[in-house]
Amino acid sequence: MTLAFDAMKAITRIEHSLAMAVSAGEAHGGPPKLAGAVRHAVFPGGARIRPQLCLAVASACGDDDPLLSDAVACAIELLHCASLVHDDLPCFDNAPTRRGRASVHYAYGQSLAVLAGDALIVLAFRTLADGAVRSPERLAGLIAMVAASAGTPFGAVAGQAWECEPKVNLQDYQRAKTGALFAAACMGGAQAAGADPAPWRGFGDWLGEAYQAADDIRDAMGEPFVLGKPAGRDVALMRPSAATELGLEGALGYFDQLVGQAIASIPECAGAERLRELVQSESERLIPAASTAHLVRAAA
Amino acid sequence: MTLAFDAMKAITRIEHSLAMAVSAGEAHGGPPKLAGAVRHAVFPGGARIRPQLCLAVASACGDDDPLLSDAVACAIELLHCASLVHDDLPCFDNAPTRRGRASVHYAYGQSLAVLAGDALIVLAFRTLADGAVRSPERLAGLIAMVAASAGTPFGAVAGQAWECEPKVNLQDYQRAKTGALFAAACMGGAQAAGADPAPWRGFGDWLGEAYQAADDIRDAMGEPFVLGKPAGRDVALMRPSAATELGLEGALGYFDQLVGQAIASIPECAGAERLRELVQSESERLIPAASTAHLVRAAA
Repeated sequence: MTLAFDAMKAITRIEHSLAMAVSAGEAHGGPPKLAGAVRHAVFPGGARIRPQLCLAVASACGDDDPLLSDAVACAIELLHCASLVHDDLPCFDNAPTRRGRASVHYAYGQSLAVLAGDALIVLAFRTLADGAVRSPERLAGLIAMVAASAGTPFGAVAGQAWECEPKVNLQDYQRAKTGALFAAACMGGAQAAGADPAPWRGFGDWLGEAYQAADDIRDAMGEPFVLGKPAGRDVALMRPSAATELGLEGALGYFDQLVGQAIASIPECAGAERLRELVQSESERLIPAASTAHLVRAAA
Repeated sequence: MTLAFDAMKAITRIEHSLAMAVSAGEAHGGPPKLAGAVRHAVFPGGARIRPQLCLAVASACGDDDPLLSDAVACAIELLHCASLVHDDLPCFDNAPTRRGRASVHYAYGQSLAVLAGDALIVLAFRTLADGAVRSPERLAGLIAMVAASAGTPFGAVAGQAWECEPKVNLQDYQRAKTGALFAAACMGGAQAAGADPAPWRGFGDWLGEAYQAADDIRDAMGEPFVLGKPAGRDVALMRPSAATELGLEGALGYFDQLVGQAIASIPECAGAERLRELVQSESERLIPAASTAHLVRAAA
């Protein structure tokens, strides 16, 4: 049992388990373009925030089955990649770029982008099943939790579906679209380690909201190189966004408030202090204090 | 333990478990249009062939956990519905109708059709987890099998992806696109009843190929009212098809041959005779002997 959390080691574990999972979905004799589209969706990755969070919580809870916590972290990242591929489609964001290069549908066409997303969702559940060899009694609870966080009525798919509704509550939309997979990462980390996931939901919810607010702010600030995708899309697509609803300054204050609430909601455990530091440094990475101050001045 | 298989009772079990699963994905406070699109994709259904097959095999294997066999039958039908919704999209078949009424994207738009398919895939795995309460030790094997049959490199999603490749082997394409979920229905029925799934794969593979050949024949015969979808799509979309590769008469002979091979591959078990009868009557329903004779004469 280890309570120290090594972020570099976590990234190595995450990239390794993603590589293994994607390989499991490939074989000689399978359709090669789909395999290429799936790889394109997963590698090279973004910040891998959700799986890092999952491993950090697993570590804080004792991480007694690292094979399972790796599988949960990996499954959540695969579901996140699937949602990016489908959200980028012409019928949604019509984004030509993602993570600084062509989006999947731009590189492989719409058909393969639809199928790559489907394949990634299926692969996520297969990864969970394969990872539960040593703790099969934890599998049903994990699958139910991950499915609720990814699907309907309050998971990531439902969140994206709010974009198709004429009337949307910003919090319902963001809790489902972004918060649900953050909550899954936190709860799944606890469950993978045999701990009760319930106390970890709040932490994930607040982090998800903070991350979404940061994304809105960065979109409004127009940093395509930082985002790796076109900026200004929320306004152009008339999507609900903290920055459009509250203004840039208001959104920055809202972000700080959410980060504070996330930190305050970390359950008491041996790894709590380390988690608080992680959240602080991650929020600083997302919205650097310097640019924030500059923007607040510019907006004043 | 019952070895008699009552098709009417099976349909009741299937519709009940589908209704429960779809309800589990709905709630006040979730996005209503997505809920509508998911319902539209599942109800009213087609012949529910895969879940019937699943319950028939479970029954032949003793069906000692009907809650689990219902869940497996339901999950496979939800995955089938998901594949129909995505296959009908404009980037694939661009089908305006399905089961005699508007396809999901035609009724709800492309965005909601993409999301409804995603939601159905997630719901399928959630249904499996929820159904494994009494036999949790069977869950990991079932999820791995269902995921392999639905995903990559040889499942239904991979099958659809062969339509995006310049060079396609007809058997690879159909085994993945249609055969995989038929095989999953058979193997899943056995696994749900605690039996070894391996001997049931061949039965499912042959049935899947027979069903695909029947679909090709009906598409080439141009029976839009029977199909509930536009006919002549295989030729129009230049898709690989038994009828275009072998001609109508050749395809009819191929169909009969596949049905015979399916029947011959039924493993020895108490319910074998009943299963043979089911396959015979189902193949007669798919390609009525009268219209077949008429077509063979017309083609001669």
